[in-house]
Amino acid sequence: MEVFFLGTGAGMPAKPRNVSSVALKLLEERGSIWLFDCGEATQHQILHTNIKPRRIEKIFITHLHGDHIYGLPGLLSSRSFQGGDTEVAVYGPAGLKDYIAVSLKVSKSYLSYPIKIVEIEEGIIYEDDQFIVEARLLDHGIASYGYRVIEKDRPGTLLVDKLKESGVQPGPIYKKIKQGGSVELEDGRMLHSAEFLGPAQKGRVVAILGDTRTCEAARILAAGADLLIHEATFSGGQEELAREYFHSTTLQAAETALKAQAKRLCLTHISSRFDREDWKMLEQEARSVFPDTVVAEDFMEITVPLN
Amino acid sequence: MEVFFLGTGAGMPAKPRNVSSVALKLLEERGSIWLFDCGEATQHQILHTNIKPRRIEKIFITHLHGDHIYGLPGLLSSRSFQGGDTEVAVYGPAGLKDYIAVSLKVSKSYLSYPIKIVEIEEGIIYEDDQFIVEARLLDHGIASYGYRVIEKDRPGTLLVDKLKESGVQPGPIYKKIKQGGSVELEDGRMLHSAEFLGPAQKGRVVAILGDTRTCEAARILAAGADLLIHEATFSGGQEELAREYFHSTTLQAAETALKAQAKRLCLTHISSRFDREDWKMLEQEARSVFPDTVVAEDFMEITVPLN
Ligand SMILES: [Zn+2]
Ligand SMILES: [Zn+2]
Repeated sequence: MEVFFLGTGAGMPAKPRNVSSVALKLLEERGSIWLFDCGEATQHQILHTNIKPRRIEKIFITHLHGDHIYGLPGLLSSRSFQGGDTEVAVYGPAGLKDYIAVSLKVSKSYLSYPIKIVEIEEGIIYEDDQFIVEARLLDHGIASYGYRVIEKDRPGTLLVDKLKESGVQPGPIYKKIKQGGSVELEDGRMLHSAEFLGPAQKGRVVAILGDTRTCEAARILAAGADLLIHEATFSGGQEELAREYFHSTTLQAAETALKAQAKRLCLTHISSRFDREDWKMLEQEARSVFPDTVVAEDFMEITVPLN
Repeated sequence: MEVFFLGTGAGMPAKPRNVSSVALKLLEERGSIWLFDCGEATQHQILHTNIKPRRIEKIFITHLHGDHIYGLPGLLSSRSFQGGDTEVAVYGPAGLKDYIAVSLKVSKSYLSYPIKIVEIEEGIIYEDDQFIVEARLLDHGIASYGYRVIEKDRPGTLLVDKLKESGVQPGPIYKKIKQGGSVELEDGRMLHSAEFLGPAQKGRVVAILGDTRTCEAARILAAGADLLIHEATFSGGQEELAREYFHSTTLQAAETALKAQAKRLCLTHISSRFDREDWKMLEQEARSVFPDTVVAEDFMEITVPLN
C-alpha cells in the first residue's frame, strides 16, 4: 500500500505543483489503484509514472471545485482509448453524474468499460472483503468529503509446521482452520484454529480529506490513522484567512493529527504563493505540533507499512 | 501576427505532444490572442510561454471531441482567478454552451469577466474593422469546422511630406484623407486621397482547420491563404485508414494546400504512433507534393509576415 501524489497544488496549476490528485496504490493488496480527486492534467502526470490507467478501479472525488475534477473526463476517455475494459466506480458529491454525463456526451466519448457513478452521502460508501470506505462531510462552503479507507484485519498465517507435527497433512482441513473455527479429526481429536494460526494482521487506515476548515469530522476520520492526508492552504498564523476561505493552516492540520492520534501526517493542497524555500518552513511549523509530518510534492510516494 | 502551437498531438496527450490548441497571436494588431481549440492542459502549456490568459479574447472550437475541448473549463476558470476582466467570446458547434455551462456550474466557478458563447453555423461568424472569420463544415463524422481568418486590407500610410508640400498643415483634413475620399480646401482646391496615400497594406489570411477527411471545404477555406494549418493524423499511403477514421494523411493535406494555392502549409494533429524520427519522414512526404511544409511541434511559433 503506497500513497502517490499526482498533484499537490491549490486552486490553479503552477509549474512546481499540479492541481489535486492522490493515487492509493493497492497493487499488492488487490492489483488495482484508487484515485482521490482528479484535477486537470492528472492523466498527463500519470504519463510520467508507472501507473497504468486501466488499473484504476475507483475514483473518489472529495468535492466538485474545478481543481479537483477537471481532469476526470480526459482520464476516463483515455482509459477507454487504451483499451481499459474493467468497471470504474466514481464516488462523489451530487452534481458529479451531471458533469461526467454531459462532458462525455457532448464530446461523443463512448467508454469501452462500464462506469458506475455514485453520488454519495455520509456513512460507509463502500465495503468488500478487504476494505471499508467511510465518508464524512467537512467544512468547505460546498459539500466536501473526507474519506477514511479502512483495511480489514487479515487472519494470521497458517502454522503449517505445527499442523504437520500434529500429523495433519495439507488438504481441506487446512482451509477450514485458516477460516477460523474448530475441526474434528477422524481419530476424534479437536483442532482449534487459534492454536494453528499466527497473530492476525492488523489492517491499515488512511484518511484522505478534501479541502476544509479545521473541523471535528476531520478528527473523527483521522482517528488512529496510519496516515492522514490533510490540506494546508495557509501557513501558521493565517488562521483568520483560512477560516474566511474555508481552508486550513499547517498548524490546524497538525493539531487535527495530534488530537486524532494519527501516526503520520502529510500536508497537501499547497498554495503557489509559497515557493520551494517556503515548503520547509511549512513543514517545520506543522512539526512543532506534530513531529511526524511531511509536506507532499508532486510525484512523492509514501509507503504505508503493515503494522 | 504569429501562430503558436500549444498542442499538436492527436486523440490523447503524450509526452512529446499535448492535445490540440493553437494560439493566433495578434498582439501587434489588436493587443490580444485568439485560441483555436483547447485540449486538456492547454493552460499548463501556457505556463511555459509568455502568453497571458487575460489577453485571450476569442476561443474558436473546431469540434467537440475531448482532445479539443477538455481544457476549456480550466482555462476559463484560471483566467478569472488571475483577474481577467475583459470579455471572452467562445465560438463552436452546438453543444458547446451546455458543456461550458454544466462544467462551470457544478464546480461553482463564477467568472470575473463576461463570457459570450456562440454556437455557430457556416458563414461569416465574426467581423470587425480589422478581421473577418469565416467558418465551414469539414468532414469528420461529427460537426467539425474549419476557420478562415481574414485580415482586412489596411489603407496606405498618409504621405505627410507631400501634403505639407501642397501647403496642407496637420489637422482634421489629414484624418479625412486617411479615411479615403476627397476634401475641398478653403482656397477651392480639391485634394484626392489616392494622391496622398501610400499603397494599401494587403491583409493576411490564415486557415485553421479542425479534424477532417480531405474535402472541398478545406480547399475553399485555404484558397490563397498565407498559412494553412491542416491535420495529418496519418502518413502517406494510409489514405484508406484516414477515410475510415475521418482523418487525413500528409499527402492529402499537401494536395489541399497545392490546389488551394496556399503559400505555406503546417501539419498538426500528429499521432503518437509516430515518434520523433518519423516526424521528418512525414514532413518529407508532404514536401514531395507541397514544398513549403513544416510539421508542427508543441511550442513552435510561425510568423505570418506582412505581404
Ligand atoms: Zn481545491
Ligand atoms: Zn482530434
